[in-house]
Amino acid sequence: MTEKTAVTPETHNAPPARFSHGVRKGNILQVAGQVGYLPHVEGQPATLAGPSLREQTLRTLENVRSVLEAGSASWEDAVMIRVYLTDTGHFAEMNDIYDAYFEEQGIKEAPAARTTVYVGLPAGMLVEIDALAVLG
Amino acid sequence: MTEKTAVTPETHNAPPARFSHGVRKGNILQVAGQVGYLPHVEGQPATLAGPSLREQTLRTLENVRSVLEAGSASWEDAVMIRVYLTDTGHFAEMNDIYDAYFEEQGIKEAPAARTTVYVGLPAGMLVEIDALAVLG
Amino acid sequence: MTEKTAVTPETHNAPPARFSHGVRKGNILQVAGQVGYLPHVEGQPATLAGPSLREQTLRTLENVRSVLEAGSASWEDAVMIRVYLTDTGHFAEMNDIYDAYFEEQGIKEAPAARTTVYVGLPAGMLVEIDALAVLG
Repeated sequence: MTEKTAVTPETHNAPPARFSHGVRKGNILQVAGQVGYLPHVEGQPATLAGPSLREQTLRTLENVRSVLEAGSASWEDAVMIRVYLTDTGHFAEMNDIYDAYFEEQGIKEAPAARTTVYVGLPAGMLVEIDALAVLG
Repeated sequence: MTEKTAVTPETHNAPPARFSHGVRKGNILQVAGQVGYLPHVEGQPATLAGPSLREQTLRTLENVRSVLEAGSASWEDAVMIRVYLTDTGHFAEMNDIYDAYFEEQGIKEAPAARTTVYVGLPAGMLVEIDALAVLG
Repeated sequence: MTEKTAVTPETHNAPPARFSHGVRKGNILQVAGQVGYLPHVEGQPATLAGPSLREQTLRTLENVRSVLEAGSASWEDAVMIRVYLTDTGHFAEMNDIYDAYFEEQGIKEAPAARTTVYVGLPAGMLVEIDALAVLG
């Protein structure tokens, strides 16, 4: 029997329902949908990094990374990154931010496969990202 | 060679195209997008549990569970639950229904990671849910 | 340590950002979101197979297949196919195209689980498809 382990970075707010920011079972680590929330401050409500696509995308990627690392993984283990945007006009800018982020992380070439689609998100949120990692 | 097995609960309608309600290969069980259809009645068309978010969400979760169980799995094996809603105004109520459902199922804490996004669905459908499980 | 390998069919355009058309790690092969682009012609920009749902869906499925095959997999290994459409009115026609495609591929019954949702896509694109495969 493979145990399932919840993965919860200390920097993260408690999820708004019964789900985990990350779950590991066997060699699979699934990162829940992350948004651009700043690191959690005790007693404070969740706060977005800023109104801009740049601020939110960078913070969202860092939040995904925190979950990967809390699950003993890294971007090197990610096989799929799902990007949800709210506006097709944001695609080119998100790609620029995304590429610069991974360059800065020292990730050579592509970190994973990716799908980007355009959906509705709660007011003020411009981007949500989740990831699937395979460990070992 | 790992065999791939289609998973089809007896309660479910035949899918509207060549896909399975669930597929297992190796230790991976993928549950296809489920909606709030009532258990299939021979000769009857697929019928939604009701017009409300509550009726549809509870029935959808039960339909996911049926596929998990037909694949010799349970909520304990789920690592990711994807929730598709049609209206950001439904998020808080869906979370309440979701939490109460898992409490009633005796699932302590969080059953899995989760991503919720807002998309279009066929007329009358308010929620669709799929799940990824790791067995063993 | 399981190595992660980028999977890039020769027929495909370079992705517009740092992601791979496919990634394999361990027994998991993830295919990135594919659209209806014609095989890449050196020096030419990416070009959709046509304006119609039929042309784009068939080409998109072929593009997914190319990634599966470049990763030493096939439709037989796919456990999940995610279909993104832009219009709920396209569901029935997409299903017809989908079924005929898999019949022609000699895939008996269902190739995988599937989720279909309706999202925004860049102008002119009517369908995007990604897939998860388990090898071995």
